Amino acid sequence: RTYTHTHTHIWSVSWAMFQDVHVMIFIGFGFLMTFLKRYGFSSVGLNLLLAAFALQWGLIMQGLWHLDDGKIKVSIFKMINADFSTATVLISFGAVLGKTSPVQLLIMTILEITIFSINEHLVAEILEANDVGASMIIHAFGAYFGLAVARMLYRPALRNSHENDGSVYHSDLFAMIGTVFLWMFWPSFNSAIAESGTDQLMAVTNTYFSLAACVLSAYAVSSLVEHKGKLDMVHIQNATLAGGVAVGTCADMDIGPFGAMIIGFVAGIVSTLGFKFLTPILASNLGIQDTCGVHNLHGMPGILGGIAGIVAVALGKKNGSAAMQGAALASSLGFALVGGTITGLIMKLPFWGQPPDQNCFDDSIYWEVII
Amino acid sequence: RTYTHTHTHIWSVSWAMFQDVHVMIFIGFGFLMTFLKRYGFSSVGLNLLLAAFALQWGLIMQGLWHLDDGKIKVSIFKMINADFSTATVLISFGAVLGKTSPVQLLIMTILEITIFSINEHLVAEILEANDVGASMIIHAFGAYFGLAVARMLYRPALRNSHENDGSVYHSDLFAMIGTVFLWMFWPSFNSAIAESGTDQLMAVTNTYFSLAACVLSAYAVSSLVEHKGKLDMVHIQNATLAGGVAVGTCADMDIGPFGAMIIGFVAGIVSTLGFKFLTPILASNLGIQDTCGVHNLHGMPGILGGIAGIVAVALGKKNGSAAMQGAALASSLGFALVGGTITGLIMKLPFWGQPPDQNCFDDSIYWEVII
Amino acid sequence: RTYTHTHTHIWSVSWAMFQDVHVMIFIGFGFLMTFLKRYGFSSVGLNLLLAAFALQWGLIMQGLWHLDDGKIKVSIFKMINADFSTATVLISFGAVLGKTSPVQLLIMTILEITIFSINEHLVAEILEANDVGASMIIHAFGAYFGLAVARMLYRPALRNSHENDGSVYHSDLFAMIGTVFLWMFWPSFNSAIAESGTDQLMAVTNTYFSLAACVLSAYAVSSLVEHKGKLDMVHIQNATLAGGVAVGTCADMDIGPFGAMIIGFVAGIVSTLGFKFLTPILASNLGIQDTCGVHNLHGMPGILGGIAGIVAVALGKKNGSAAMQGAALASSLGFALVGGTITGLIMKLPFWGQPPDQNCFDDSIYWEVII
Repeated sequence: RTYTHTHTHIWSVSWAMFQDVHVMIFIGFGFLMTFLKRYGFSSVGLNLLLAAFALQWGLIMQGLWHLDDGKIKVSIFKMINADFSTATVLISFGAVLGKTSPVQLLIMTILEITIFSINEHLVAEILEANDVGASMIIHAFGAYFGLAVARMLYRPALRNSHENDGSVYHSDLFAMIGTVFLWMFWPSFNSAIAESGTDQLMAVTNTYFSLAACVLSAYAVSSLVEHKGKLDMVHIQNATLAGGVAVGTCADMDIGPFGAMIIGFVAGIVSTLGFKFLTPILASNLGIQDTCGVHNLHGMPGILGGIAGIVAVALGKKNGSAAMQGAALASSLGFALVGGTITGLIMKLPFWGQPPDQNCFDDSIYWEVII
Repeated sequence: RTYTHTHTHIWSVSWAMFQDVHVMIFIGFGFLMTFLKRYGFSSVGLNLLLAAFALQWGLIMQGLWHLDDGKIKVSIFKMINADFSTATVLISFGAVLGKTSPVQLLIMTILEITIFSINEHLVAEILEANDVGASMIIHAFGAYFGLAVARMLYRPALRNSHENDGSVYHSDLFAMIGTVFLWMFWPSFNSAIAESGTDQLMAVTNTYFSLAACVLSAYAVSSLVEHKGKLDMVHIQNATLAGGVAVGTCADMDIGPFGAMIIGFVAGIVSTLGFKFLTPILASNLGIQDTCGVHNLHGMPGILGGIAGIVAVALGKKNGSAAMQGAALASSLGFALVGGTITGLIMKLPFWGQPPDQNCFDDSIYWEVII
Repeated sequence: RTYTHTHTHIWSVSWAMFQDVHVMIFIGFGFLMTFLKRYGFSSVGLNLLLAAFALQWGLIMQGLWHLDDGKIKVSIFKMINADFSTATVLISFGAVLGKTSPVQLLIMTILEITIFSINEHLVAEILEANDVGASMIIHAFGAYFGLAVARMLYRPALRNSHENDGSVYHSDLFAMIGTVFLWMFWPSFNSAIAESGTDQLMAVTNTYFSLAACVLSAYAVSSLVEHKGKLDMVHIQNATLAGGVAVGTCADMDIGPFGAMIIGFVAGIVSTLGFKFLTPILASNLGIQDTCGVHNLHGMPGILGGIAGIVAVALGKKNGSAAMQGAALASSLGFALVGGTITGLIMKLPFWGQPPDQNCFDDSIYWEVII
């Protein structure tokens, strides 16, 4: 038989968690990006294409490190890991959303997952670092990889924004479908590959507390920095999730509910402030046009999660070495920035059908659209 | 370790049920309320804020009754109960939707959950009444609490309706996302805290049958009372769910499929007729402006569920005392009406930023909205 | 006690799978059909009505074949089968979407499920054919039943299309909610009634691979056949799912990941080509107006699945007889075409309120709609 079969109990929990992660990948990421008023088909449609391609490529790339009698054997556990590798690509997709062709994105998928699987192997097997919820190897990696690609694909003509680079009322509601599913199922994401049932339960509850606290700080800061105390939908759609990212590395550590809530609370603040103040500076001063603000949702909270992991291991909350945790964070950032830069250069080659500036953020260049 | 860990089998079923309940709270309630044409951001956005805050407060309030060595210990079971306490607030939110500020709603959350946890303790521990699906302690309680608040916040100027107090085509479709997720996962809601696997299975199937029958009567009555036999989206969005509410108290009792279907069938009739005939009377004659019609979805079906529970216990379908079931219903209604009235008076104080009449049902007072 | 209770482990996996199938039936089918610009209320609303009615009728019809002491006993397994019987009706509903009254559809539901349960009994119990994911008995059956009904209800006046028989931007996004939930949870559909945990895991992974490959071929072919290499939303919404249909019969057979991927890949090609070239011919030359293109999503891929099952059994991938597999396919098609024709004739009787041509594809004939 081609398949490995795990024990029934484990299979039932794993299966529920796999389905939750699957919903995050296909509904969560897909609809979160539908906020753009004229780019919803591409957001949810290319998300489906890239994810379906990425999980196959991810199974192969990750499987090559764990050959069993010369074959890649499939299990629910490996399907979860394949979805994880897919997440890195979808995060990077967020950074370049609206400015790349499907072919460019497929090339990015192949290269990013290849590089991801090298870094993942290094972090997990060589450095033996903890990263159960993948703050470092998925979120920080995917964000900085995407930002490096975005830097390479910089479009000076879009410096003063683009008429289609924005939302309308209903597109923001579609995006909230993505946000809420991501928010609800993030505890499954952070616990799906935990080692034991006890670790899994701890990862679930820590993530639950971090996300709950993060919502409060994201709303509070959004209201503080906006005109007349109003809320900004961009913050609510994204920064409410930063707690899930930031608690990832520590999720299965005994940091306690308050530890988890502090991480989530800080992540909500950092993420919201990033959207308000940092994203415009990155675009105008550094030439990094980050369509979805992945730096605020995945980048900074991912680094925060890596640092929290270093501190927690240093405090003895989990077996491991603070130095190795630090090395894992550095490795993830290094592979992301170098890999993303090289990938961006390849994507910039003139024969991949990159859309011209005036057709950015517009479905009608790739889809039959009836207006 | 801070967490209690239940046996693996139980953990896997509980986890699946928790996730279903979580989807009901965040997607179900959140999108159900997006039917208002200009209030979708607030519906799903404030739903997220209130629920994330409420579950933390609920964990503390419920945990204080069950301290373990001076500490509140967290488990999946307690997370389910925290989501339950959240549901009461979201039901009351439906009654005052569009007419209250976020600060008013946070105050309501604190007070309502505090009062809820007292009544829940009384019903479950002192009266030892059955209410597995919480027809009385969540649905009736949340509805009458919200109606009492709405009475206190009565706005004479909105007596003749408000231009934004209505739906458009796409907002009604967004609301159907909420309806359908609530409908599908209600069996998990009514069975999540059942005592044994057998009770849980019975609660699942009874709720399944009640909901299926309720859909038929809701559609039939909607068509009967509307002009030219047409269907009204308001009825479909709401009254199809009344069967889940009404079977709640009896869900784990051996009432048989036909018993469950009769309860659901009656609930669908009562709820639809309530929307058509009672809600306008409450608004015009009693000064109770119930935006979402929670009286029809949660109030009357909740009382129906309580009465069904009294009858079922009297018929020996479950251990217990019919008198105690009656006392539990009376207690839930009493706490709701008194608690809601006091809470409404506090919410009416002039410094909580209550929106003026002309800005009701309009996101743009609290959100950056691009029209 | 009225209910049968299966062992705890099984109950937990079954429950998770049941909920996934339930989501496919109510959200998946319901929203998939909301692509029509003026028929979203009917799509998701009548889907709810028909499914809630069908599952009750299906429980009875299927239960009559398996009476236990003169009674129909309910279990999660039977609830899954009831949802399956519902699926046949919803597939046929797709063929006649926008052209039938609710009363006509309820009549179709009663007749179709009755005929379905006869054919299912024949295929499973008499022929003892394999069809774990129901390529033949649900997908091919439902599609050809619906096409036969559509042929009987042929409307010459709609030969040159109808102004409301099309989508708008947001209605296509609502439809993608249905597509993505169907895509994600199809592995549960194909494995829910597998005989053992090992078979279930195999059905899950085979379906997963088939669907992943199918997405790639559907996108590729859509781009090849459309003007300027663009993608067509109709293809993406539907043909990406054909792999789930086509791998159904073989899902629990040891066909290997590559076998599953080849089936999915071919299904994606056949389905997309069907939408592009065959559907217009069926409508103009044969008088079969197939609103949702169920022939492309369920019909041809269902036959493909049946043939793949014949081949796989002939190759010894599963116990069984290739002849019996062939007989099962022939029986399913025969019952569908004859049953659908008779049902269509009954539905054509003039007193069921069939909408006039000019009111087709328009909610306002059955719903209170505020434009």
